[in-house]
Amino acid sequence: MYRTHNNGQLRAADINKEVTLAGWVQKTRDKGFMVWVDLRDRYGITQLIFDEERTSKEVIEKAAKLGREFVIQVKGTVIERESKNPNMPTGDVEILVSELNILNESLTPPFTIEDETDGGEDLRMKYRYLDIRRNPVRENLIFRAKVAIAVRNYLANQGFVEVETPYLIKSTPEGARDFVVPSRMNEGQFYALPQSPQTFKQLLMVGGLDKYFQIVKCFRDEDLRADRQPEFTQIDCEMAFVEQEDILNAFEGLTKHLLKEINGVEISEFPRITYDDAIAKYGNDKPDIRFGMEFGELNAVAQHKDFGVFNQAELVVGIAVPGGNAFTRKEIDKLINWIKRPQIGALGMVYSRCNEDGTYKSSVDKFYDQEDLAKWAEATGAKPGDLVCVLSGDKNKVRTQLSALRMHLAEELGLRKNNEFAPLWVVDFPLLEWDEETNRYHAMHHPFTSPKPGQLELLDTNPGDVKANAYDLVLNGNEIGGGSIRIHDRKTQAKMFDYLGFTPEEAKAQFGFLMDAFQYGAPPHGGIAFGLDRLVAILGGQETIRDFIAFPKNNAGRDVMIDAPAPIDKKQLEELHLKVEIKS
Amino acid sequence: MYRTHNNGQLRAADINKEVTLAGWVQKTRDKGFMVWVDLRDRYGITQLIFDEERTSKEVIEKAAKLGREFVIQVKGTVIERESKNPNMPTGDVEILVSELNILNESLTPPFTIEDETDGGEDLRMKYRYLDIRRNPVRENLIFRAKVAIAVRNYLANQGFVEVETPYLIKSTPEGARDFVVPSRMNEGQFYALPQSPQTFKQLLMVGGLDKYFQIVKCFRDEDLRADRQPEFTQIDCEMAFVEQEDILNAFEGLTKHLLKEINGVEISEFPRITYDDAIAKYGNDKPDIRFGMEFGELNAVAQHKDFGVFNQAELVVGIAVPGGNAFTRKEIDKLINWIKRPQIGALGMVYSRCNEDGTYKSSVDKFYDQEDLAKWAEATGAKPGDLVCVLSGDKNKVRTQLSALRMHLAEELGLRKNNEFAPLWVVDFPLLEWDEETNRYHAMHHPFTSPKPGQLELLDTNPGDVKANAYDLVLNGNEIGGGSIRIHDRKTQAKMFDYLGFTPEEAKAQFGFLMDAFQYGAPPHGGIAFGLDRLVAILGGQETIRDFIAFPKNNAGRDVMIDAPAPIDKKQLEELHLKVEIKS
Repeated sequence: MYRTHNNGQLRAADINKEVTLAGWVQKTRDKGFMVWVDLRDRYGITQLIFDEERTSKEVIEKAAKLGREFVIQVKGTVIERESKNPNMPTGDVEILVSELNILNESLTPPFTIEDETDGGEDLRMKYRYLDIRRNPVRENLIFRAKVAIAVRNYLANQGFVEVETPYLIKSTPEGARDFVVPSRMNEGQFYALPQSPQTFKQLLMVGGLDKYFQIVKCFRDEDLRADRQPEFTQIDCEMAFVEQEDILNAFEGLTKHLLKEINGVEISEFPRITYDDAIAKYGNDKPDIRFGMEFGELNAVAQHKDFGVFNQAELVVGIAVPGGNAFTRKEIDKLINWIKRPQIGALGMVYSRCNEDGTYKSSVDKFYDQEDLAKWAEATGAKPGDLVCVLSGDKNKVRTQLSALRMHLAEELGLRKNNEFAPLWVVDFPLLEWDEETNRYHAMHHPFTSPKPGQLELLDTNPGDVKANAYDLVLNGNEIGGGSIRIHDRKTQAKMFDYLGFTPEEAKAQFGFLMDAFQYGAPPHGGIAFGLDRLVAILGGQETIRDFIAFPKNNAGRDVMIDAPAPIDKKQLEELHLKVEIKS
Repeated sequence: MYRTHNNGQLRAADINKEVTLAGWVQKTRDKGFMVWVDLRDRYGITQLIFDEERTSKEVIEKAAKLGREFVIQVKGTVIERESKNPNMPTGDVEILVSELNILNESLTPPFTIEDETDGGEDLRMKYRYLDIRRNPVRENLIFRAKVAIAVRNYLANQGFVEVETPYLIKSTPEGARDFVVPSRMNEGQFYALPQSPQTFKQLLMVGGLDKYFQIVKCFRDEDLRADRQPEFTQIDCEMAFVEQEDILNAFEGLTKHLLKEINGVEISEFPRITYDDAIAKYGNDKPDIRFGMEFGELNAVAQHKDFGVFNQAELVVGIAVPGGNAFTRKEIDKLINWIKRPQIGALGMVYSRCNEDGTYKSSVDKFYDQEDLAKWAEATGAKPGDLVCVLSGDKNKVRTQLSALRMHLAEELGLRKNNEFAPLWVVDFPLLEWDEETNRYHAMHHPFTSPKPGQLELLDTNPGDVKANAYDLVLNGNEIGGGSIRIHDRKTQAKMFDYLGFTPEEAKAQFGFLMDAFQYGAPPHGGIAFGLDRLVAILGGQETIRDFIAFPKNNAGRDVMIDAPAPIDKKQLEELHLKVEIKS
């Protein structure tokens, strides 16, 4: 036994006990006749004292030479601390050390092991094992584990069975790019790593498992945007004999449980909004509803005046910025510059100040009188003291722009509070979305999603209008979960593959096993998958998922700590029947 | 809602309730004026009744046409069953059906969905989703989930933190063959799938996480022996500031908890045996101790007589077969033929019958008198009525042969009882083992295992004698877990790599990150990993791990259901900078 107690454990009640502690040297103070050491481990910090009168000369000299992050073991007596530290759980006591054993030395770490470190992102990633010694990083990992076990116990108590599905599966052309794994035993053939266990969980429903879940790694070989990882973790769920309503209730239950268990927040019922309404009201299918600023459409009240810009626009739409009348002219100009940046791409912004006295002062007073502007205020819900910001143009573009403005302003105004939680369901997603690149419709969710009852026929005439039994769970402006009721009969599935451009041969080669399964009594079923990394980050009140992943990869998909990926032996390549061909 | 109750739920107390049920048609009995249907789901079977007098003609006709495995929904009333079935939880009631809704039809399944099926292994694997509908397979999956959550909750309660380590890591030449994953973004470079999260868990200890665990998939590209899978699941654990004793206690605790929680078996303390003793007593480092039959060495009492075979042998060793004197001459000859098969390779077997009257009758009476044979009986612990079987020859070979014989006999005699559990620790494993193929020593556990204190020096002189701080947990003749105290200082680790034939450059390229980490205050640490597939199978009282894996692969590493691995697109290969080269 290296220790009798950990470093977060000892209290006044332990005074006079003989103890053995072990841990890392956080810092030392050497006054010559006395040395203090802060000894740290996962559980806390305990102060050690070495003093000339009570500690042997040899030990005190050894203590004076301890460096930061040395690993030591000490034996000693718990004594009352002279100057107590009420900010530390162990602050009433210290250890008068009689024996000191250096278990391992340490070079000076490349950054300080403190809550606020001087190490930059790159250095912290290269020495991630030192970064994990820092309280905030370690606490994030412990928090993640706590969320995961809360999910598991809740779902298990609800009768869900965690089933491990395979990692070495088959590559499919649909969706994102697969990571593949060459097979040595099957020449020229490849496994693929799952982008999700989608087909397997559906087969488990065909298999009568009724309620399935799994916390599982998934893989996507995509060009990495900020805060995306090539491997990520999903809470993957599926139920049989359910309709959309059953799924929504079941996983609203899970989310409520987590919010209560983890964050102490009780939420009675999650609002629901259709996809179309979300787009119209927030310009976005994952609206942050912690704050208002809903879109007000102004076509009826702002067009057919003399303002040509608005008259020509497909959509004129505004938001009321709470307290925005306090913005200076300079601040408003800054805002206008912000939305004109190429990333946002608005051509300009019209605004109307709502004065405290009930009058208005707009940037287009030439064209609109007080009565007009009162209608703008009414449509956007603006009150005296607010600022109405109006964009106009192509419907889709302008909504996206106004959504960006809304989020930007909310951020600036401190309306996106980390300790507030506002979940909502977005339902009735379109079945298909138009892809500019390939010039055809793609499945918005995936090809296994069922259209709403009676809408299958629309596929041939108005494909873009077909709604799906698909839903997303949105929390604080992030999609944390998404799912659908699946197709469960072979004919509909075949029609869908056909529609998505699969030849019957391709459909059979890729998904024949699923189509076969549907012929042997497939029950109606549906499910949902949550992104655990994102969920944990949001529940933890933080933005970046990377802070909740023990060993994340950088934006080039590299693990800079272990330096992977890396070239492999020629012999390994030969065994895999492969040759590397780099085109210059 | 597709159902108000499941098919295992209704009881006499529910009589007169209006219910909606859904599930699969297990079987139908059609008497013309009456039709019975057994409706099945995960939870049980409920009997439906359609009768001329109380059900509409249309519904009764529809019912008569239902085929096996059709998915149906029915509405009806719970009524008392005339001929109750006490063997079914729902056997007191049946449902008088008023509405019948066919949710999906089914082709005739390729094998019967019964506890004992007529489907062979291949067919069952191809239609695994139908196999999973069978009670025993489904119950195995549910059992596995129950074990996994029991493991998680126990370890979490003990302060262990589950941390997800990466799946896309770096290939290392040590150990078994890696599966690799070509990187598209890093030309000509590869990730590897982890054979275990070994280095990551050690880095978590360097990172101060103190107690880590993870239930995690691991991957080995080995030629598959029976009952091995290319992907398998490990309960991976590591602790800091521990000695071997701490690890043994911690995971004896886990195992006891599982045996109690899952099997209702209480075991007070696990016996411990050294590797050397296990080999001497059982010829095997994973002895099954549910039964005796320990080896008795007979050199002292059987050599230096006139029997040349024994005199020339390095080792003469026997076991007492309980009740074996009842074997006929024919049965003994069969036994001798069994051990002479090439797989076992013994040259012959000497035996001595221990008669009930205290006399002996051996196959070598010419050379040994009653007094000699009494000593054999004493050395092997044979009692009157037993049979002493004796093998001789080269020490290592003869022990392996006698171990095989011991297990064979125990199996034949019914001594390997599935509901008996006999765990034990095997400790003090050798650090190195000689590899005939490469003609050098390899790490027996892995290169991170620490030698026993003070034995490092032996490496240069008697490498085969160096014992490691390594241990296995054995249950019913299977290694269910294994681990070690790790090296935690750079110098020792460098020496170990050097000894194992790594050049300093190779060591740095492969494990530089770990060696670096050891310079920044690595604590003493150690751990263990359990094979979850095997553990679950044993706790479930079964032999094959495949029965506890939802979608296993066959011996060629293929998933015959989805038909993977498979060729991939030329475009995919190009993006990965690869070319397939098959040598004919």
